[in-house]
Amino acid sequence: MLSDKLPKIWYGGDYNPEQWDKPVMDEDMRMFQLAGIDVATINVFSWALSQPDEDTYHFEWLDEIINKLYDNNTYVCLATSTGAHPAWMAKKYPDVLRVDFEGRKRKFGGRHNSCPSSPTYRKYSTLIADKLAERYKDHPAVLIWHVSNEYGGYCYCDNCAEGFRQWLQARYGSLEQVNRVWNTRFWGHTFYEWDEIVPPNALSEEWAGDRTNFQGISLDYRRFQSDSLLECYRLEYDALKKHTPHLPVTTNLMGTYKELDYFQWAKYMDVVSWDNYPSLDTPYSYTAMVHDLMRGLKDGQPFMLMEQTPSQQNWQPYNSLKRPGVMKLWSYQAVARGADTVMFFQLRRSVGACEKYHGAVIEHVGHEHTRVFRECAELGGELQRLGDSLLDARVHSRVAIVYDWENRWAVELSSGPTVGLKYVDEVHKYYDALYKMNIQTDMIGVDADLSKYDIVIAPVLYMIKPGYVKRIEEFVNAGGTFITTFFSGIVNESDIVTLGGYPGELRNVLGIWAEEIDALFPDQTNQIVMNESWGALEGSYTCGTLCDLIHAEGAEVKAVYGSDFYKGMPVLTVNSFGQGQAWYVASSPDAAFMQSFLGTVCKEKQITAPIAPVPGVEISQREKDGSRYLFVMNHNSCEAQIELGEILAVDQISSRELSGIIEMKAKEVLVLAY
Amino acid sequence: MLSDKLPKIWYGGDYNPEQWDKPVMDEDMRMFQLAGIDVATINVFSWALSQPDEDTYHFEWLDEIINKLYDNNTYVCLATSTGAHPAWMAKKYPDVLRVDFEGRKRKFGGRHNSCPSSPTYRKYSTLIADKLAERYKDHPAVLIWHVSNEYGGYCYCDNCAEGFRQWLQARYGSLEQVNRVWNTRFWGHTFYEWDEIVPPNALSEEWAGDRTNFQGISLDYRRFQSDSLLECYRLEYDALKKHTPHLPVTTNLMGTYKELDYFQWAKYMDVVSWDNYPSLDTPYSYTAMVHDLMRGLKDGQPFMLMEQTPSQQNWQPYNSLKRPGVMKLWSYQAVARGADTVMFFQLRRSVGACEKYHGAVIEHVGHEHTRVFRECAELGGELQRLGDSLLDARVHSRVAIVYDWENRWAVELSSGPTVGLKYVDEVHKYYDALYKMNIQTDMIGVDADLSKYDIVIAPVLYMIKPGYVKRIEEFVNAGGTFITTFFSGIVNESDIVTLGGYPGELRNVLGIWAEEIDALFPDQTNQIVMNESWGALEGSYTCGTLCDLIHAEGAEVKAVYGSDFYKGMPVLTVNSFGQGQAWYVASSPDAAFMQSFLGTVCKEKQITAPIAPVPGVEISQREKDGSRYLFVMNHNSCEAQIELGEILAVDQISSRELSGIIEMKAKEVLVLAY
Amino acid sequence: MLSDKLPKIWYGGDYNPEQWDKPVMDEDMRMFQLAGIDVATINVFSWALSQPDEDTYHFEWLDEIINKLYDNNTYVCLATSTGAHPAWMAKKYPDVLRVDFEGRKRKFGGRHNSCPSSPTYRKYSTLIADKLAERYKDHPAVLIWHVSNEYGGYCYCDNCAEGFRQWLQARYGSLEQVNRVWNTRFWGHTFYEWDEIVPPNALSEEWAGDRTNFQGISLDYRRFQSDSLLECYRLEYDALKKHTPHLPVTTNLMGTYKELDYFQWAKYMDVVSWDNYPSLDTPYSYTAMVHDLMRGLKDGQPFMLMEQTPSQQNWQPYNSLKRPGVMKLWSYQAVARGADTVMFFQLRRSVGACEKYHGAVIEHVGHEHTRVFRECAELGGELQRLGDSLLDARVHSRVAIVYDWENRWAVELSSGPTVGLKYVDEVHKYYDALYKMNIQTDMIGVDADLSKYDIVIAPVLYMIKPGYVKRIEEFVNAGGTFITTFFSGIVNESDIVTLGGYPGELRNVLGIWAEEIDALFPDQTNQIVMNESWGALEGSYTCGTLCDLIHAEGAEVKAVYGSDFYKGMPVLTVNSFGQGQAWYVASSPDAAFMQSFLGTVCKEKQITAPIAPVPGVEISQREKDGSRYLFVMNHNSCEAQIELGEILAVDQISSRELSGIIEMKAKEVLVLAY
Repeated sequence: MLSDKLPKIWYGGDYNPEQWDKPVMDEDMRMFQLAGIDVATINVFSWALSQPDEDTYHFEWLDEIINKLYDNNTYVCLATSTGAHPAWMAKKYPDVLRVDFEGRKRKFGGRHNSCPSSPTYRKYSTLIADKLAERYKDHPAVLIWHVSNEYGGYCYCDNCAEGFRQWLQARYGSLEQVNRVWNTRFWGHTFYEWDEIVPPNALSEEWAGDRTNFQGISLDYRRFQSDSLLECYRLEYDALKKHTPHLPVTTNLMGTYKELDYFQWAKYMDVVSWDNYPSLDTPYSYTAMVHDLMRGLKDGQPFMLMEQTPSQQNWQPYNSLKRPGVMKLWSYQAVARGADTVMFFQLRRSVGACEKYHGAVIEHVGHEHTRVFRECAELGGELQRLGDSLLDARVHSRVAIVYDWENRWAVELSSGPTVGLKYVDEVHKYYDALYKMNIQTDMIGVDADLSKYDIVIAPVLYMIKPGYVKRIEEFVNAGGTFITTFFSGIVNESDIVTLGGYPGELRNVLGIWAEEIDALFPDQTNQIVMNESWGALEGSYTCGTLCDLIHAEGAEVKAVYGSDFYKGMPVLTVNSFGQGQAWYVASSPDAAFMQSFLGTVCKEKQITAPIAPVPGVEISQREKDGSRYLFVMNHNSCEAQIELGEILAVDQISSRELSGIIEMKAKEVLVLAY
Repeated sequence: MLSDKLPKIWYGGDYNPEQWDKPVMDEDMRMFQLAGIDVATINVFSWALSQPDEDTYHFEWLDEIINKLYDNNTYVCLATSTGAHPAWMAKKYPDVLRVDFEGRKRKFGGRHNSCPSSPTYRKYSTLIADKLAERYKDHPAVLIWHVSNEYGGYCYCDNCAEGFRQWLQARYGSLEQVNRVWNTRFWGHTFYEWDEIVPPNALSEEWAGDRTNFQGISLDYRRFQSDSLLECYRLEYDALKKHTPHLPVTTNLMGTYKELDYFQWAKYMDVVSWDNYPSLDTPYSYTAMVHDLMRGLKDGQPFMLMEQTPSQQNWQPYNSLKRPGVMKLWSYQAVARGADTVMFFQLRRSVGACEKYHGAVIEHVGHEHTRVFRECAELGGELQRLGDSLLDARVHSRVAIVYDWENRWAVELSSGPTVGLKYVDEVHKYYDALYKMNIQTDMIGVDADLSKYDIVIAPVLYMIKPGYVKRIEEFVNAGGTFITTFFSGIVNESDIVTLGGYPGELRNVLGIWAEEIDALFPDQTNQIVMNESWGALEGSYTCGTLCDLIHAEGAEVKAVYGSDFYKGMPVLTVNSFGQGQAWYVASSPDAAFMQSFLGTVCKEKQITAPIAPVPGVEISQREKDGSRYLFVMNHNSCEAQIELGEILAVDQISSRELSGIIEMKAKEVLVLAY
Repeated sequence: MLSDKLPKIWYGGDYNPEQWDKPVMDEDMRMFQLAGIDVATINVFSWALSQPDEDTYHFEWLDEIINKLYDNNTYVCLATSTGAHPAWMAKKYPDVLRVDFEGRKRKFGGRHNSCPSSPTYRKYSTLIADKLAERYKDHPAVLIWHVSNEYGGYCYCDNCAEGFRQWLQARYGSLEQVNRVWNTRFWGHTFYEWDEIVPPNALSEEWAGDRTNFQGISLDYRRFQSDSLLECYRLEYDALKKHTPHLPVTTNLMGTYKELDYFQWAKYMDVVSWDNYPSLDTPYSYTAMVHDLMRGLKDGQPFMLMEQTPSQQNWQPYNSLKRPGVMKLWSYQAVARGADTVMFFQLRRSVGACEKYHGAVIEHVGHEHTRVFRECAELGGELQRLGDSLLDARVHSRVAIVYDWENRWAVELSSGPTVGLKYVDEVHKYYDALYKMNIQTDMIGVDADLSKYDIVIAPVLYMIKPGYVKRIEEFVNAGGTFITTFFSGIVNESDIVTLGGYPGELRNVLGIWAEEIDALFPDQTNQIVMNESWGALEGSYTCGTLCDLIHAEGAEVKAVYGSDFYKGMPVLTVNSFGQGQAWYVASSPDAAFMQSFLGTVCKEKQITAPIAPVPGVEISQREKDGSRYLFVMNHNSCEAQIELGEILAVDQISSRELSGIIEMKAKEVLVLAY
């Protein structure tokens, strides 16, 4: 647990002392104290500095800064510095350089720039991790290891091609099996020798990023690349653990970042950490969903908010300032949903290169008399006062939404029926409806135990992994409510269609058959017309994107299409299965339907909100040792009134006792213990 | 004639048995019978399967399926399988791989992937065609050869560079002449040695696909690439004909596909075949125009509808289902315009890779109880009942529209005056007006005999081939009506401007001089103001895109521009020339003008519609042995009323006798014999 | 001075006799006379013609045409022909070919195609310049040298990489210093050997053209490439001057062309020349601004209008014709702002390749009976009548706007705060306001002497060069009015932030501190609310793009923001500094603010317009030998009325005496001497 070494919500962030001289660093120490900062993530991009050539390592500068931080009561989240390889390495060993999607061998530059299959990169990244662990294994400042940085990107070089073939051999055993799962008799693709297989990129099977001729190949290449980067991480992980089994190891993830299957990664992370960079126009519920997803990666275990900006980003097209109170509000949003740290990128703004206009606790002006610093210091004080009360508190949800990276890859690699289907948006539709009703929701992977939930929602569950339908059936049979949608149950884990009628293996539990799938143009819609009122559902709603033309085969038809040649065919069905029910939503509905539908389903399951929903006011609850901490967060730019009902609580921030009707200020946060 | 072996409209489509096991194939045989399917196109993508290495060929699987089909009363359209080379070939002989427009050597993947100049590809594609022809030359199942598949795409490799130089040498004789026709003194491009010439792509003369510095080079490269792929086709053609002079040979074309000059190709095809993939929003008249163009490729000879989808495509952005009745309606549209076959891609949906969401007669559910199958079977029954009555029937038109691939290349390669000019759209404007008036039209190339037409329309006849103006003049002189437009007569076949005033060689027959050409912004228009009413033309109309500033030099001015500094200058002129008339339309008019103008011109020529036009109801007539077959097709989603006038007819589908006013159901088709 | 050899406004343009045979050339001579043309620019693209191989040169054709022109009273602007290398050279010495931004080695094609670091290009371009100068040094036809053509484009080849390292070594002395100014400790970029540095392109640090990870590297590469092309120019310059010290040397620039720092180039040009290609929708004030910028390159010295089209371009998307009178109007606009020549591209339209639809004095029809020729000849006559009266006349401005290429690079390379900030547009906003008020303005570089101006405006002066703030302070201290804006004073010449608070070095003179910078979405705005009326400024105005959150530190607050959380913070301030004032405009205002603000500032300085502004009527004044020549240009398509006030003048075109109220025809030009 993070709480062992520093029993409070960690507060700090990325710090790059190597870019500054001593007087500046001294000033930083002073200001960290002012701000209540107690953790600095250092050494993220110092590989070139620490290792000037193949045989030489200089860590004296690092000793010095770690000691200085520690002397100033600041702990260290110690990065391994392998997020960007040195220029000398790129020159001497070009195998560290990637070949990009266009088939171009890259040169030195940027970051996220190392080939995951590079022998050189693997050797020297492991070696420096080993050296760092050995050197600092007993240093009391070091709280945690931060491996590399924001792993991402794919490579298509010859080493990766060879690695891909070995990965395939390990996964499938034989070339015959590869030919089978890829269906290579299509378009005459039969492979007779392993080395006929090449990575799928713009020179072979793919174009425009996510378009491919061979879904199976592209899918496996994504798995392979995700695994390869994970191997790089694991090599460092093992080197670190060899010396410091007592220290947790993490790497900073990026939410719904598409290219890596974080459920696989989380298995090898002691604690999940992630970087949260919403834009001015990101829906609050979207950020909440991603926090919940990060919490879900390790089955509800608290996570680290590793990075967020105190004020503005630099890489968005229009980098709005975070309005007054927003940084604090969004920090508590993370904590409300499971974060045990609040950390920034960055503690001090750099003077040159591409992130100099990224916000920081200490701005270019260099002193503490800024709005941003004042807000940071205010939060720092609050977090100190909160102490360890919230640490390791858990979130309890009775509703879960399934999220699966491989499913997303498959859905978005699909050629047909529509380019308009975006997996994350469909998932978010369901999440958003629950969020707006103050229903706590878990985001879970396909390995998660379903039995602890009352309702499991799997939007666009296109790819069915082996055994998963059996688990869904057991869940429903035991009384659970399962909800899935159009374009589900279509393929197996190799993107091979399950024959015998959509939704494939799910037909049994759903009691329907989807005969055809119509794709609507962006300006087209159909309607969901209720056969009769059911709970909050009545009349008709709008739907679009895809429309499955389904037949009920045992399921009850709750609503039918309102127009087109399939007018009158079912669009919403529910099937009784054992003690439970399985719903099918055959098209992508509007928000009004979503809330009425999920509201009614939750009501049937007696799942209720702790307090009544108020527009723009978010809630989330963590629990620990019998105490409940209800976070109430007013995202509005104006006051809001909430009604606590029977709750008598103490706000952990203000220490006020609260009950009844409460007026909240714009952007105000309450942490109600009750 | 296709009718020799199977005297009915062929019905079937692409079938990939190599992707399936025996029980599935057995079920397919049963379902083909149910659907009235009698032709299967097989072996399209089986090269890798049949030839696992350089020296080994396995055709046993093919023997088996051909026999099985034949035993089940299904004939075979036998493909040569060279539409995608094997992976082992790409590895062993990289010369089969293309270099793309960006100058990148491709790797194995996709299809349409072989370099047309590759010695390896030419050798082995010819060899397998030879082997197939030898093996199946006497098999009674085989009706026709289907060479490769949807030829297309260009290559820019060194073999192509060398091939280009040889092609130039053959065409022009000397480098001096090449320098002359390309006008290489412009921008200092004089070539002194053949190997200084390189293919025009993103590394040399072109960018963004159709933009070029040197129109002459780019034009000749398109000719060369079209010819090179044609040579590949011809090598297989000759190999096939050597063994089976009695079997027709075709390859499936793609309508207005830009990159290949199909008029050149058709010379070497025994029968034209093509793949028809309209979208939900493709104008019906556009599809009709392309059918007519395919018919025109071999001077009116019936063609094969080789591919269409029974339900939906997979590669469009939004793949709508074909609404009930549409598949049948569009099948008859093809027949109405000259098709003697109705064939699908595909008979059974594959389970994996990029075409698994492409519609098929047999869907993933695998049984016959689907809407799509029922519609296919219904059509199958109708086609069986129609027997051979329509086979080889011809379409007779008195109006022709000129379509020329090389002209299109030149127009769209032009740097200036506008990027807004799309050749096919301008051609379609004229076609659409005639279509909407029920005037039967031929689409002809520049080699076609003009004397059989009353009216010849050549929209944007920018490039004038040697001798063509003489033939136009003879046509007009003999009483014909010729219509051409702005941006015509400008260049010769090398894109070299004909000096002495636009429209160059056409000035004489048109009696005008175009002094300047103004390009309008997309939101700008001018007006066509009639000097006085003429037929249906009166008042004013809108025009745009380009405005030629013309002077009448003998021609009569029918209308003038309504605004801008050239207000009052002629925009519509007609010149009397011998017994005929030559019209010039100096800008791109709106649809209202088009119908009034062409309606009046047709009326003057006593060209009338068989029945009165009804919006959304298409007609086309084929004739044979003194019988006329008038196809009447209601594209509307509602009923339509047509008036047969004096026609007493028997509908060949329903066998009803019809006369007077007829109510047609939505999507209904009549084939009226009279 | 240009006037020495041909004492009138030179009239003519690009002429490519090498593309034509003798009879055509003879006809050209006749038509040049008709049009009053007296200068032909020749030999621009004849390198391949003159030098057919490495050792052979043929200039006989050039002798012939120069003599023929001279015999027909036409002088020669003699190009060195190095704007496009020969194909044989590209084949034999591939080092002349560039590597493009995508990292692709180019092949022969296009123009602007030579690598600036190529030893071959440098050797042979210098050699042919030398040979030309030696051959024609005494020819009386030759008035001026025209080196290469429209230099531009960057290269990223290995020779450039090596050249870049040497350039860096020369600029910075040591690798340590390079690491420092690029801030390479960011993202672990420390370089230990020179050859670890690679050019910043799509393979290393940049993407999408102007996006970069390392601003310092990208900035220096732009400097290096601009310098390298300049070196190529200077090699030719020196070769020419060796033989013909008496002849001026120029190369044709392209206005605000981004990639070359023309202030550096102008130092090595005897006279500035440029090519002016506005579109139909280019604001007249934009063209005026660019003329003024070209005049500013050499501190007010008259320049050459080297190219413009008589009628239409070919390379724009929609190439509108210049309306009647527009060519003449825009020609005088150039003269009004400092041009001493009026020259066209091109005198005769070519018949083939990509510029055949570019307008010319002699069109494809080949005779003089065209609107375009008539307008050219009319202007030719007028210029002959004007004689030498205007030659070398100067423009006197009391207002200057600062324009800096390096600043533009830095602003547009910046990652954050917004992609919406376009340097040229911000500069044009200020220029346009002055233009609309008939206030004559100079466009100056950062090396210009400020003391001769009353008002100096430096929009978005993001990059502060060493010593520049001191010069601004001296200017203000001495009574000048300085105006700058948001996002100014931020970085030094290496794009390294000046610490201690924005706007850095400018804080002192401006008396403000900018604490934060908010970026607005394109559809967001804020307001400029005046604290009280000041001159023409009252009430409120709209602003956007960026909003600096500033604090007055001595400056007077004239206006505050009207909304958002920084409502009430200053947005317009003025600081008294010595005898002068320094303004800060903290956001990007609307046009209404601009005119009221600058109008009031000018009024305070007693800067007035010669005549009252009339919408669409442009004025500019040149002065010489005590005479003032006020150009009045009616851009409107209708008549306009101007009021001369106390001016009694003679129109130099019509010789009319004018005073009081004058009616001007659409597109009419007056050149009023008074």
